[in-house]
Amino acid sequence: MFLNHAIAYQLSWHLPAPLLATTAAENSPIILSGVLLTLVVIYVASKVGSEVAKRLDLPPVLGELVAGVIVGVSALHLVIFPEGGFTGSDSLIMTALQALNQLTPEAVQSIFDSQSEVISVLAELGVIILLFEIGLESDLRQLKEVGIQAIVVACVGVAVPFAAGTLGLMYFFHVAAIPAIFAGAALTATSIGITSKVLAELGQLKSKEGQIIVGAAVIDDVLGIIVLAVVASLAKKGEVDIINVFYLIVSAVTFLLGAILLGGLFNKTFVALVAKLQTRGNIIIPAFIFAFIMAFIGNAIHLEAILGAFAAGLVLDESDARKELDELIKPIADLIVPIFFVTVGARADLGVLNPAIPENRAGLLIAIFLVLIAIAGKLVTGWAVFGIPNINRVAIGVGMIPRGEVGLVFAGIGSASGVLNKPLEVSIIIMVILTTFLAPPFLRVAFGQSKDINMNEPVQM
Amino acid sequence: MFLNHAIAYQLSWHLPAPLLATTAAENSPIILSGVLLTLVVIYVASKVGSEVAKRLDLPPVLGELVAGVIVGVSALHLVIFPEGGFTGSDSLIMTALQALNQLTPEAVQSIFDSQSEVISVLAELGVIILLFEIGLESDLRQLKEVGIQAIVVACVGVAVPFAAGTLGLMYFFHVAAIPAIFAGAALTATSIGITSKVLAELGQLKSKEGQIIVGAAVIDDVLGIIVLAVVASLAKKGEVDIINVFYLIVSAVTFLLGAILLGGLFNKTFVALVAKLQTRGNIIIPAFIFAFIMAFIGNAIHLEAILGAFAAGLVLDESDARKELDELIKPIADLIVPIFFVTVGARADLGVLNPAIPENRAGLLIAIFLVLIAIAGKLVTGWAVFGIPNINRVAIGVGMIPRGEVGLVFAGIGSASGVLNKPLEVSIIIMVILTTFLAPPFLRVAFGQSKDINMNEPVQM
Repeated sequence: MFLNHAIAYQLSWHLPAPLLATTAAENSPIILSGVLLTLVVIYVASKVGSEVAKRLDLPPVLGELVAGVIVGVSALHLVIFPEGGFTGSDSLIMTALQALNQLTPEAVQSIFDSQSEVISVLAELGVIILLFEIGLESDLRQLKEVGIQAIVVACVGVAVPFAAGTLGLMYFFHVAAIPAIFAGAALTATSIGITSKVLAELGQLKSKEGQIIVGAAVIDDVLGIIVLAVVASLAKKGEVDIINVFYLIVSAVTFLLGAILLGGLFNKTFVALVAKLQTRGNIIIPAFIFAFIMAFIGNAIHLEAILGAFAAGLVLDESDARKELDELIKPIADLIVPIFFVTVGARADLGVLNPAIPENRAGLLIAIFLVLIAIAGKLVTGWAVFGIPNINRVAIGVGMIPRGEVGLVFAGIGSASGVLNKPLEVSIIIMVILTTFLAPPFLRVAFGQSKDINMNEPVQM
Repeated sequence: MFLNHAIAYQLSWHLPAPLLATTAAENSPIILSGVLLTLVVIYVASKVGSEVAKRLDLPPVLGELVAGVIVGVSALHLVIFPEGGFTGSDSLIMTALQALNQLTPEAVQSIFDSQSEVISVLAELGVIILLFEIGLESDLRQLKEVGIQAIVVACVGVAVPFAAGTLGLMYFFHVAAIPAIFAGAALTATSIGITSKVLAELGQLKSKEGQIIVGAAVIDDVLGIIVLAVVASLAKKGEVDIINVFYLIVSAVTFLLGAILLGGLFNKTFVALVAKLQTRGNIIIPAFIFAFIMAFIGNAIHLEAILGAFAAGLVLDESDARKELDELIKPIADLIVPIFFVTVGARADLGVLNPAIPENRAGLLIAIFLVLIAIAGKLVTGWAVFGIPNINRVAIGVGMIPRGEVGLVFAGIGSASGVLNKPLEVSIIIMVILTTFLAPPFLRVAFGQSKDINMNEPVQM
């Protein structure tokens, strides 16, 4: 028996050497190297960007986005993704790794894909943790107070840009109905993440305006995802799937109301559990189990993971362990959230704005139209607020402008499904970039104007 | 112009519907769902495991490993990896996601691969952060005091199991020279991670024994990786590549000595930088930029990323900002390190131990031999310590026993390169599992015996 094995061993190590070069085990340290280098670039960019923005008296998050643009597809090509049509050889980091490790082009591509996947998921975890933290910092009672206002603002903010965008594309630009509806739908969903971070930086997250904006952005995200599901069904089947629409509406409403109503129950379980645990991570691990389960449910019922994380934060907000959790989550958020903001900037290809290239001009006109509708369609929402004297209507309208990641989801799915062609897809991306870039400084101005007392004070965090 | 575009749009949305089902944009939320579910399983397992272990008066890390085995390939199939020869349909999480989302088998496989890649990298980041934290907690001056002892212990702990393992396999089991040398080499490297965490839990990290073990494990990891590189070259080319051996030895020595000698310089830069930053993450981001750069360098010079992270921790240990950093890194480590320990357990297939299956028996004998040599070969290192009266020699020997992740790297590369066939690969994995599982309770007993004063006190941490 041993002799047979000895022969087997002697045979087995005469396998050809090239096997070694293409295996996952061989590539795995290089994937890790790629992830580490990309994270170093992201962290350096986020710190340089946020510190420069801070010194220019702009919100740090704007600096992180601009720094992301600089290290991304538009300029340095350090942080790029295969979804942008790039291959491993376009990435400076991959080129460096290839030179260091003498890789074959196939290995470079496979490492680039894996590394990009990891960074993408880390960015998604970043926005989940951001929304969890924002949920923790939000006061549920205040959100209830502005509930009806938030619903009205959200509905106006979905209906106006959707209708104006779709009809404008069809009548002025002769776009066919389905892509026009899809692009119109891409104008609907406000990005909670960017606005919330700017509001927190301005110390306005708990103001009436801040609570209406965040509340409306949450509702409007739900409405936006419903619109996306409907429009995607429309494009796929040529008809609106009523059962799916009904299922999505019911699940979204049940999910958010359920989370808020069952909040007390979750809280008691959470506090009792934390008190019984004796090993390290006794608060942070149960909190993240809850947040990730809620994010998973949000994702599984075809809403958004970030909605689940936000609901989880809102629920634990009421908990007695909150203060400690608030402190523990800060370093985690500081480490993971910048990955989201820098990659949002990195993915945005400002090159498509270049009017010197004739092919860009057709898209450019559509882009200008979409940007104008995107801004005007959300700005009017401020005047939908009723019964609150001295409310800052401009600030609410401006706070609803940024589209961020949800708009990018529309562009991605629309382009992948073939509903949108390149100029229309690019126009949506330009709309997302401009609304995201313009909203933070506009928001500062809008809040600065109405709060003269704060004009000469330094900006809070 | 607009009319032409209108025609283009009308054509473009008549693309076939199946396109929608296979795109990355469509799969991306499901990959995120898979990652979230896997993290929830890992966190629940790690908390249940560590709390049960704590109540049984065992080190929490042992509970995390056992919980990992239970959720992994050996039992529940919740956390499995493609490297174990598994496909998406073997994973319970993927089966659940498939049912939820009506996925094609190809989509399931692609999502499974991406999700596994993300979890693998998170586990690698976990061990990097663990070693960074351990480096921060270690006192460099103490490590210098036991430097020579650590070198002697490390050299004995590499030479004895390497020689005994290789010769034993060749003469008792008639294994050919190259695979025998490779398996012998797999016995050399002590796992710093597992021993360090157990030592920290026992409050023994700063004891003479603890410092010698950690110091020796660091040196022995370097020696082990050098041996791996040499043996892999040997297997690939049929000869020892002297230039490569020389390059590896020089780079390892330069790297560690350089990090320690230049520590003061890094420190001043770090402290000055932290003082100037005004935005969130002013301590944690520069610290992680440094740790990740060091980990990248460790990886790039074909040593180990964890060595770089450990060196980074040692250097920042001397820094004035250390106390604050110590507090900030705890919640991050609590969140990411369990991913490493649970996946180490999850990857270990205890099924290959089953003696009821006849094919397992040949490997089982080799496994028993390797385990005995692995334990005895490290146990003797305690008696290599000289000139320190009343030193706990058994504790040092036992502390060097666990092989953990480095042993698994040997098994992975050996099997991928064709040097090792299945029974020998499985024997190495069994050796890694058993030494990893046995060392923590043995270490507690070894320290308990010599420190009677602690016998009735509750375990620290």
